[in-house]
Amino acid sequence: MPVTLDDVRAAQKLIAGRVSRTPFNRARTLSDITGAEVFLKFENLQFTASFKERGALNKLSSLSEDERRRGVIAMSAGNHAQGVAYHARKLGIPATIVMPLGTPFVKINQTQEHGARVIVDGEGLEAARQLAYDIAERENLIFVHPYDDDRIIAGAGTVALEMLEDRPDLDAIIVPIGGGGLISGVATAARGLKPEIKVYGVETELYPGMYNALKGEDEPAGGQSIAEGIAVRLMGERCIAIVKELVSDIVLVEEEMIEHSIALLLNIEKTVTEGAGAAGLAALLTRPELFRGRKVGLVLCGGNIDPRLLSNVILRELSREGRILNFAVAIEDRPGILARVATLVGEAGGNILEVTHNRMLIHMPAKIAELRISAEARDSDHAREIIAHVRDAGFKVREIGAGGG
Amino acid sequence: MPVTLDDVRAAQKLIAGRVSRTPFNRARTLSDITGAEVFLKFENLQFTASFKERGALNKLSSLSEDERRRGVIAMSAGNHAQGVAYHARKLGIPATIVMPLGTPFVKINQTQEHGARVIVDGEGLEAARQLAYDIAERENLIFVHPYDDDRIIAGAGTVALEMLEDRPDLDAIIVPIGGGGLISGVATAARGLKPEIKVYGVETELYPGMYNALKGEDEPAGGQSIAEGIAVRLMGERCIAIVKELVSDIVLVEEEMIEHSIALLLNIEKTVTEGAGAAGLAALLTRPELFRGRKVGLVLCGGNIDPRLLSNVILRELSREGRILNFAVAIEDRPGILARVATLVGEAGGNILEVTHNRMLIHMPAKIAELRISAEARDSDHAREIIAHVRDAGFKVREIGAGGG
Repeated sequence: MPVTLDDVRAAQKLIAGRVSRTPFNRARTLSDITGAEVFLKFENLQFTASFKERGALNKLSSLSEDERRRGVIAMSAGNHAQGVAYHARKLGIPATIVMPLGTPFVKINQTQEHGARVIVDGEGLEAARQLAYDIAERENLIFVHPYDDDRIIAGAGTVALEMLEDRPDLDAIIVPIGGGGLISGVATAARGLKPEIKVYGVETELYPGMYNALKGEDEPAGGQSIAEGIAVRLMGERCIAIVKELVSDIVLVEEEMIEHSIALLLNIEKTVTEGAGAAGLAALLTRPELFRGRKVGLVLCGGNIDPRLLSNVILRELSREGRILNFAVAIEDRPGILARVATLVGEAGGNILEVTHNRMLIHMPAKIAELRISAEARDSDHAREIIAHVRDAGFKVREIGAGGG
Repeated sequence: MPVTLDDVRAAQKLIAGRVSRTPFNRARTLSDITGAEVFLKFENLQFTASFKERGALNKLSSLSEDERRRGVIAMSAGNHAQGVAYHARKLGIPATIVMPLGTPFVKINQTQEHGARVIVDGEGLEAARQLAYDIAERENLIFVHPYDDDRIIAGAGTVALEMLEDRPDLDAIIVPIGGGGLISGVATAARGLKPEIKVYGVETELYPGMYNALKGEDEPAGGQSIAEGIAVRLMGERCIAIVKELVSDIVLVEEEMIEHSIALLLNIEKTVTEGAGAAGLAALLTRPELFRGRKVGLVLCGGNIDPRLLSNVILRELSREGRILNFAVAIEDRPGILARVATLVGEAGGNILEVTHNRMLIHMPAKIAELRISAEARDSDHAREIIAHVRDAGFKVREIGAGGG
């Protein structure tokens, strides 16, 4: 194995006091919901809001004086960029970060604020990575790989040492897989300390890279994932070797389950996670039978979610719960009808959020307009009652599916 | 004084292990922003997501066997309801909660889930409180006041004991004021332990009840506050006496500052607070000169914010930062013009979020339509560049203010 328990222990000593020792707490309501005894490792509470600092600091600290003077370069659209930039500045090492075209403004800004030189170029991760390699060669910089590096893996593994220090009785750990660095470190440390513990990986079904590597499958990878941090095609070579040896299984999760998990962590645990950070909970909800009655640690690996995306996740969850219902009513286009429909919704206890009035429907006669109503209900039963009440008054109601409309 | 440091110490022993000892952590970025050294007490991470459990449990535990059999009743639209319901069930005490008409569904549901009998009745808090008194008398129940009660105050004070155990070097504590229970307990405990510490209260300027009591003013109270937990007219009598004696000053904050503080805590600290929970940060941002260079503890007293409201707060913050710009373009209503405007916005690096097309503007000629565009920019400078780019191409652009449109 390229990395050992001792490497992780050495990393722990090295980063102590310079990276947060994050809380690892029991989650009561999530335990009730899933049937497992759930513990959450809050890596989203690191200063740059992800576990990436652990590996970055462990790597940067290992550089020689000469290497530090030359400076480092990394390619990342997200958390690795910030982890490297932040700790490089603290150590006085010049850092260059290459971010692909289209990287969200907020991530570019945050990386610049950590004092790094940021180059936004390259269509997609592959092109940006090649560009970073080219600059590294031209300018004689040290390339810091986000996951396929022994020091990065050993640093990430310190998460598991803390989890087992706090709860030596853990039965299993679920770890999101991007390129495989975090799970490699966690599996090395956890199974090194406690051989009988199970480590599970989780990937979005859109990017089943490690699943393919483990099962010898060739499922396609691609698409817009809500979990950018694990939307990775290329697994680390070292990581594949470690995962094959030490990980029990890979759980593939649907995008909607990841979204639902972000909302649960926000609403119940009052904590902000990005898609990758919520993927462990999604795995637990997808395969509850694997974990029922067992003590399971989830790594909330990051909290950097775009605010607009988070706002959408919240609203879509309300629709999913049936707490926001959307329906259309065909009405005669004359005064008083909107008031009549609104009164009916109110009588049934619904709270109207939004009304639009559409007069341009060619599939209907010119004198008929369509009223689209978005209303809040107590739950999905109540939503059905509201619609029934409007129908009973003689209106023609068409329900519009959850999640939009 | 009706409550003493010893009462708070006794409460601490009594609730130990049954109410969470929440984290009290240094907030680096908020310290940089405010110029104070900021520490956050995460009471929003209590099981029912507010500090109210402390007082509720301390009160319920003090009841005699006979009183426990009779059962308790409380009036609350929010956190007190859940705190009482949750701990009453754990102690096997029957609980009735009266909630005013219009209480959000989610709060009614959560209170019922804790096993309480919930009565939704009464227009407004005053009417609901009277109803609760009537039921208490009729059914011989013990009324649990949300703040004007020695046991409730002593329980709330345990927050300050924990803060000073963790950081004995604190210079000041900022506490949101609803009816005054939390600040009374905190001031009693903190100044009892460390007489030189300063305790400040914070109220929304819409509800300056304690401010009025302290200053002998009669500023009007009322309106829709984002911070329901501190939108309280009636101060506790005991609380007024304690605050007059022990509190340095009351800071009044604007609603917009509370909203901004919720967003900062969400985006930077990755934690969900309700309006009252973020009010301490709003006070620090409103009166930074009071706290500059000092070690200040903020009590994030609750995290129960309506998800729809939270979603709005996130979007409005983006507008406030200039990251979402809204503008209208007067266009000739013919094919290709929308594409032309969209191209211009894209050229300037703006990301279009929403477009509406309005043909019904009577103040414009019939052949002119208005295009309303909502777009994402890097920051407010970039927003201005985008608008200038569209104008330079010959279009008439009208900017629409932040926060909506």
